[in-house]
Amino acid sequence: MREDILVREVGLRDGLQLVPEMMPTERKIEWMTRSAAAGVREIEVTSFVPAKIIPQFADADDVAAAALADASFLASVLAVNFKGAVRAFDAGFRKINTLVSASETHSLANVRRTRAEAVDAFRAMIAEREARGLAGEVTIACCVATAFGCTLQGEVPERDVVDLARQVAEAGADEIMIADTVGYADPLRVGRLMRAVAAEIGDLPILAHFHDTRGLGLANVVAAVEAGVRRFDASLGGLGGCPFAPGATGNIDTEDTVYLLETMGFDTGIDLDALLALRTDLEAWLPGQRLGGAVHRAGVPKLPATYPTLVAAE
Amino acid sequence: MREDILVREVGLRDGLQLVPEMMPTERKIEWMTRSAAAGVREIEVTSFVPAKIIPQFADADDVAAAALADASFLASVLAVNFKGAVRAFDAGFRKINTLVSASETHSLANVRRTRAEAVDAFRAMIAEREARGLAGEVTIACCVATAFGCTLQGEVPERDVVDLARQVAEAGADEIMIADTVGYADPLRVGRLMRAVAAEIGDLPILAHFHDTRGLGLANVVAAVEAGVRRFDASLGGLGGCPFAPGATGNIDTEDTVYLLETMGFDTGIDLDALLALRTDLEAWLPGQRLGGAVHRAGVPKLPATYPTLVAAE
Repeated sequence: MREDILVREVGLRDGLQLVPEMMPTERKIEWMTRSAAAGVREIEVTSFVPAKIIPQFADADDVAAAALADASFLASVLAVNFKGAVRAFDAGFRKINTLVSASETHSLANVRRTRAEAVDAFRAMIAEREARGLAGEVTIACCVATAFGCTLQGEVPERDVVDLARQVAEAGADEIMIADTVGYADPLRVGRLMRAVAAEIGDLPILAHFHDTRGLGLANVVAAVEAGVRRFDASLGGLGGCPFAPGATGNIDTEDTVYLLETMGFDTGIDLDALLALRTDLEAWLPGQRLGGAVHRAGVPKLPATYPTLVAAE
Repeated sequence: MREDILVREVGLRDGLQLVPEMMPTERKIEWMTRSAAAGVREIEVTSFVPAKIIPQFADADDVAAAALADASFLASVLAVNFKGAVRAFDAGFRKINTLVSASETHSLANVRRTRAEAVDAFRAMIAEREARGLAGEVTIACCVATAFGCTLQGEVPERDVVDLARQVAEAGADEIMIADTVGYADPLRVGRLMRAVAAEIGDLPILAHFHDTRGLGLANVVAAVEAGVRRFDASLGGLGGCPFAPGATGNIDTEDTVYLLETMGFDTGIDLDALLALRTDLEAWLPGQRLGGAVHRAGVPKLPATYPTLVAAE
């Protein structure tokens, strides 16, 4: 019996948010439907932000309706503020993702709030859930963004990340996401920070959100797994980054992450061949985007499912 | 005081061997000279194989002469058979790399020898070194190739790898290289195999040679480091693979490997900025090659050299 591990698809949100061409709504729906058919259990399907801020999510209501009509996967949505959360409750989402930034500078730039105000906004979302009688029915996950540093502020003390994780956990978060928003993480700090956060938040699950900006994305996954993390965000084809900033890159890609975790002995529940076929189509849908990843080029090794091993697996 | 770790540049050999256009000899010399100036301590500068088999190494004697005239780095050469080793002794190399393949099928295809015959050939090289009175002066490293599987044979039992490593160690190897020749390795098996080999060969250093075929290259480095490995092969820009086989990819790239190991707290002795400048030129020198890697796009994070940390480094 292999241990379950969750790979959550966030390409439809984090991957697409800076893609300038609008992806047709039916394509987005095909992406989520086929991901679910391949075994992806949770998909962040869109973001509830004003279309004038991120035009790619102008169809968020339609995408949300299609996602919530499909019982084959858990649909979640990003709500960066209270208004977005109200939209998510109204739409009927069972899972809402939100965030606070560990960098005060990033928090002010991204959502025009101090970190303390962002935590207050999170408490208001939890209160709204109680007021609607949805406690126990709607899960709210809170991300601590820029957890490994910030392009605006520079360094982000680990203590700040741990303090924020504890505050949102105490406020009622059902899941803590630790995000390397700008691709500064490395395995040493990943292991240390994940352990430090876990020690503060008790039994709450931790999800890791990595970008592959400097090639360390999967090395960071290994470090997070070793620190006990069993939930990961990933984006099909590593989609993401800003087309106007050549240095920016996307999330770790779903297919290489699945391949890695399966080799590590975990059960993602995902059919890698089906995922690779979907990636091929995604690449055709987005001719202007450079996708990442490697396993799609080389394929899965042609080896028996079980290797003869010299010693027992550790 | 940070612990030293070795990143050996093999791009001039493993990276170039399937590049169809001949790189001018002076370019090769510039590559090695600038690598050494950037702090690379050991470079595999060429391969002593007949030019009719690998035309890229038609200038091996000239490259070797230039390398051996440069005292700023340790030059090594690949000798796949006894004749190549004789050439290396005659040229005056202080370090010779050779190999045996853990896959019987690959051994027969690559060097037309069984594994047992390959070990005998290795013993003959050691005997030749003794006969020349070069014991203690010339280091001979032996690679166990296809250590994680073989595209021809499929699975390669770990027991075969460990047995071969022990045989060549007993025969007199000064360093054991464990190579994922075809990019089948994953962190779980890397950790297990490196520990198993180390347990067999005592104090002999182990070098790991990974390809980044399926995106797991740096994750495998992390696993190898955790298993105690302190020497790694890498190729600038991840050069390698076969231009006629889109699925093939090169070694892990030198610059991302250096970045990773430095973040892990090791001292590579390498100036990453100088390496990145050289990579930029390499890309211009090889317009037909797709190079890999990520840190050259994003740059090193703009953070203080020492992060404020919550807990002591583990």
